[in-house]
Amino acid sequence: MTINGNNDGLSRRDLIINSGKAAAGAAILSIGALNAVKTADAYEYASTFKYEKLDPHEVGQVTYENYFKRWCTSSVIAGFVEALKKKVGSSWKDFPIDAYRWGHGGMAGWGALCGTMPGAGVIIGLVTKNTDTAEEMTNDLAFYYSYTELPDFEPSKIIKAQIKHMTIAGTPVCHISVGRWMRAEGVAFLTDQRAERCARLAANIAMETTKMLNAWVDGKYAPKHQPLYNVASNGITSQNNCKDCHGQYVPSPNKTYETLKK
Amino acid sequence: MTINGNNDGLSRRDLIINSGKAAAGAAILSIGALNAVKTADAYEYASTFKYEKLDPHEVGQVTYENYFKRWCTSSVIAGFVEALKKKVGSSWKDFPIDAYRWGHGGMAGWGALCGTMPGAGVIIGLVTKNTDTAEEMTNDLAFYYSYTELPDFEPSKIIKAQIKHMTIAGTPVCHISVGRWMRAEGVAFLTDQRAERCARLAANIAMETTKMLNAWVDGKYAPKHQPLYNVASNGITSQNNCKDCHGQYVPSPNKTYETLKK
Repeated sequence: MTINGNNDGLSRRDLIINSGKAAAGAAILSIGALNAVKTADAYEYASTFKYEKLDPHEVGQVTYENYFKRWCTSSVIAGFVEALKKKVGSSWKDFPIDAYRWGHGGMAGWGALCGTMPGAGVIIGLVTKNTDTAEEMTNDLAFYYSYTELPDFEPSKIIKAQIKHMTIAGTPVCHISVGRWMRAEGVAFLTDQRAERCARLAANIAMETTKMLNAWVDGKYAPKHQPLYNVASNGITSQNNCKDCHGQYVPSPNKTYETLKK
Repeated sequence: MTINGNNDGLSRRDLIINSGKAAAGAAILSIGALNAVKTADAYEYASTFKYEKLDPHEVGQVTYENYFKRWCTSSVIAGFVEALKKKVGSSWKDFPIDAYRWGHGGMAGWGALCGTMPGAGVIIGLVTKNTDTAEEMTNDLAFYYSYTELPDFEPSKIIKAQIKHMTIAGTPVCHISVGRWMRAEGVAFLTDQRAERCARLAANIAMETTKMLNAWVDGKYAPKHQPLYNVASNGITSQNNCKDCHGQYVPSPNKTYETLKK
């Protein structure tokens, strides 16, 4: 497993090419150490936020409508909070929905994690109150986001534009996900169509989250996927589709990237 | 600007190669539409969470210590909450620190956005109460994260391991950031050294956030960077360093990735 050695000059390509070798190690680790990573530290925590079963399409519709003002992260939160304010009340009543708007566009437009994911994560984390459950549910949600043709949400009334395509993002990374859809649809980022797509996608994520939380509150939620780290073969926090983004690219070892600590 | 046309078969490489052309369009847009994106929708929002000036190193130290139980996202939150519980009280007293733990490892280990960023973002969003301010501050923090040699935090007592290297991540993306550091240090992910690095990095992010919030509460915070989208030349939510990850890679147009909506 080359990543254990002294590999100062090891390129990302080496890491990717060697992932087959690392896989063997990871497979062994997944039985022992990696499962330990998942479960050993799991614990319950207190939170004043309660959940009651909601109608997935209603949550999706409110999310969709909120997107055009609040963008991805806060629109997913709004979908839940508007409903839970009425149904549960208490802590949800003064929930600061917009305090999470910075999550949009992969964090302030940096294009990293799609903002719908932390939006859903905030709700999941607040209501499930168990680190393992929140981990399992956000992991399932990332699989749903990455490997489902989206968006298939149909708004009751289209706000911005007709759109033609659904795409499989292959990742929860914002700029890859939206870029693949833009390429399919043939439109630029600052278009009504792209906004419409992200609004419907946010609705889909809110709906899927609602379904998981509804099952959970009934004691029927069972995770659909292994934690990514248990099945990952890269020895790092990542998906297994390295070449999907990185291809054959060999980044030249750049010594300006690293300095010794004092 | 090819991304406006009908480009069903347009590859990511085309998008990247054409970014120069797109830049001209983006430069024009940045004066008009893109600035409008930033400011037109900005608004104040209510939140019961108050901030008082904190000692950056103390926040960093608590973050560092919490990392080994709570991982990146919740450890940054703990750094603030533990201090604000004592100094401000009220809403901070029953803050569910662990409700955000799923943000670790780029979201449940998926390697997307470094978990320290949403950790800091949660605090920034809750206390600044203005969508523009939260946007500016999280943007500045992403620049700090991406283009500073880190970690340079020195714990009062080392918990896990001595580490030798600092690296410039070039991005707030988890697996790139930690991968570059692992390559420099020559260690694998499941090592005491890597855990130590992420704990110190979390401390650095918490400290930088403290400094910004301290300036803000004194009315002295001024953003250091343009919103990325205003300076971006890619017509999408991303940094401008496309080739840093994608290189010369040409993804083959994969029709299974896209389907027409009913």
